[in-house]
Amino acid sequence: MVDLEFLKKQCIEGKSKIVLLVMDGLGGLPVKDGMTELEASRTPNFDALAKKSSGGLVDPISTGIIPGSGPAHLGLFGYDPLKYEIGRGVLGAVGLGFDITCDDVAIRANFCTVDEKGIVTDRRAGRISTEICTALCKKLSGIKIPGASLFVIPEKEHRAAVIFRAKGLGADVTDSDPQRTGVTPFDVKPLDKKSRKTSEIATAFLNSAGKVLKNEHPANMILLRGFSKYPLLPSMQEVYKLKAAVIAVYPMYRGLAKLVGMDVLRTGETIADEFAVLRDNYGRYDFFFVHIKKTDSYGEDGNFDAKVHVIEEVDSSLPKVLDLNPGVLVVTGDHSTPAVLKSHSWHPNPLLLKSGFCRYGLMKRFTENECANGGLGRLNSLEVMPLAMANAQRISKFGA
Amino acid sequence: MVDLEFLKKQCIEGKSKIVLLVMDGLGGLPVKDGMTELEASRTPNFDALAKKSSGGLVDPISTGIIPGSGPAHLGLFGYDPLKYEIGRGVLGAVGLGFDITCDDVAIRANFCTVDEKGIVTDRRAGRISTEICTALCKKLSGIKIPGASLFVIPEKEHRAAVIFRAKGLGADVTDSDPQRTGVTPFDVKPLDKKSRKTSEIATAFLNSAGKVLKNEHPANMILLRGFSKYPLLPSMQEVYKLKAAVIAVYPMYRGLAKLVGMDVLRTGETIADEFAVLRDNYGRYDFFFVHIKKTDSYGEDGNFDAKVHVIEEVDSSLPKVLDLNPGVLVVTGDHSTPAVLKSHSWHPNPLLLKSGFCRYGLMKRFTENECANGGLGRLNSLEVMPLAMANAQRISKFGA
Repeated sequence: MVDLEFLKKQCIEGKSKIVLLVMDGLGGLPVKDGMTELEASRTPNFDALAKKSSGGLVDPISTGIIPGSGPAHLGLFGYDPLKYEIGRGVLGAVGLGFDITCDDVAIRANFCTVDEKGIVTDRRAGRISTEICTALCKKLSGIKIPGASLFVIPEKEHRAAVIFRAKGLGADVTDSDPQRTGVTPFDVKPLDKKSRKTSEIATAFLNSAGKVLKNEHPANMILLRGFSKYPLLPSMQEVYKLKAAVIAVYPMYRGLAKLVGMDVLRTGETIADEFAVLRDNYGRYDFFFVHIKKTDSYGEDGNFDAKVHVIEEVDSSLPKVLDLNPGVLVVTGDHSTPAVLKSHSWHPNPLLLKSGFCRYGLMKRFTENECANGGLGRLNSLEVMPLAMANAQRISKFGA
Repeated sequence: MVDLEFLKKQCIEGKSKIVLLVMDGLGGLPVKDGMTELEASRTPNFDALAKKSSGGLVDPISTGIIPGSGPAHLGLFGYDPLKYEIGRGVLGAVGLGFDITCDDVAIRANFCTVDEKGIVTDRRAGRISTEICTALCKKLSGIKIPGASLFVIPEKEHRAAVIFRAKGLGADVTDSDPQRTGVTPFDVKPLDKKSRKTSEIATAFLNSAGKVLKNEHPANMILLRGFSKYPLLPSMQEVYKLKAAVIAVYPMYRGLAKLVGMDVLRTGETIADEFAVLRDNYGRYDFFFVHIKKTDSYGEDGNFDAKVHVIEEVDSSLPKVLDLNPGVLVVTGDHSTPAVLKSHSWHPNPLLLKSGFCRYGLMKRFTENECANGGLGRLNSLEVMPLAMANAQRISKFGA
């Protein structure tokens, strides 16, 4: 497979627009009468579209590997998730809408409970409420560290993001989170020279945090893990010569898209809202990443019928996208989230590609099995962008 | 995927012969009544063959990448086109049947028109006739360059190949062809130490050419681009232990085949001529690369019906190939050239493989969509030779 450097050389400007519609966790498994969520859905618009489209199955990472949302999306954007690893800390911070910079070390944090000897008795502090978490993060934000700025941002329940900001900080330090109870938190040790200052800052922060949280219960301490820095990704503008924008309801997907240089378009919460934002901004960009979250959420809940309902809702709004007549429309998932598994899975994602220059005639519907024999075969997610770019006639000939 | 070194170890001598029939630019796109060129063709012989064959779709380089003829064919022969790049100059020279050596720098040349200030007004000199081109090349061949031999070989119309021959010449120099009108030709500048002498030779040649052509019209100057050297490719004999021959009407395909060690068999212009040459030489070689050019030519012209006609002509002559009962027959394209695009495209090539040991039963015809679900799935062109070799029982077991 070609790499980003090769693509950078081959990609050219063009007029054709690309819409990448990602229904998170779209792929499913047969349950009801042997049908998957897609098969059980009533989707007249997708059915009609499929008849004029190519189809394929897409592995987010590699056969059998279950991806998280970060690597799954990076792959779809054409960035090898095995090469460009996004640290847990950075993923958490961008997921919270934090504007991360190159001077930041971002860290995933958990409030926890320690006993009088400092031994961890509950790594999640009894899953304190998000309200308490928010209040405690505010307290911790008051800690002063010489030579660095500090940000402590609440997530859900016991989770938070911690960011240290100072020039030249490395992120190669060990975690304080021991990943088990019955021991004291570990020291944060530097693994290279550049990370010595980071370990000093972290140690100072943890000492202060212990004092600030001393009288709280059950969240009387905080554990740090996944120290990471902003990954230096070439932008989609650099690689593909595309002016790209993201339309997503959840902050993490906007954050991921920002990491590869997409502009964030403000949107309301519904699918209709997202498609209206697409229409209103259609003239301003070459590439749109439109993210639908609820297919994944209901998959994770094990709610087959609700996932079907979301698919049908997207189908009924689909004409709003088709009316724009994009040069290339790709509809796919980032990973599968079969309701029966209640989790992300390794099953490849159904992908439908419609353009003025696609082969068609093999699909009657947009389902996993129809896509399996839809002409494109089995692809890796890294092939999706080159394929979309080719169909947009934005790739030049290689060699004479 | 395995590399040439691995293949070299595994390939063994055998008795079974392989015929690789390449219909250039074969793959198409649906146009007429939703049919591609192959689908619209009446091909009773291919249809019968397909029923006893495996089918697949082949990417020449990588998904979405549009290949030139050089890399597309190298891939089919099993040589990674991203590793073994063939420069435009070398491709042109071998295309003209020039016997290129390791001491040569080959260059693509265009006769052009310049005004009295030396500004390029027509990069193709009004597409002068091949006769005039031939006469001018003869004149330029008389130029003396100290320390180097010079060859100037006419191609079609305004095109020519220039070769400088001297020990130790590098080819990393900039083009003189500005690729646009309204400016003077560029200086040929060296990009590394080894190429300094080449830039001096090129500069001396261009100065003399300007004087020699001064009173010609409209071809009063020449532009140089694509300086390149002979790529050191292991021969097919070395890698596959095959005695290989090429049957092709166009010089470029013969030249490409020669680069990987194939013998060139003289042939007449028609498909019937080519198949007769195959028959007459069948006893003398293990491997035949038979190249049909016109499928691509008519694709490039946007002439759907004429491309269909060539496919039907090949089909009607096919029994002449089948009568030889080759151990392995592979029919495919080097890249797709859909008539609707009038150019090479990124769409994978339909491939049909018939041998005594292939799985069959999935295909009813030889078309893109039938091949998509023909059992072999989606392949990279680098997999075609190992597959053909295996079917010829010319690959030994790996490991015990």
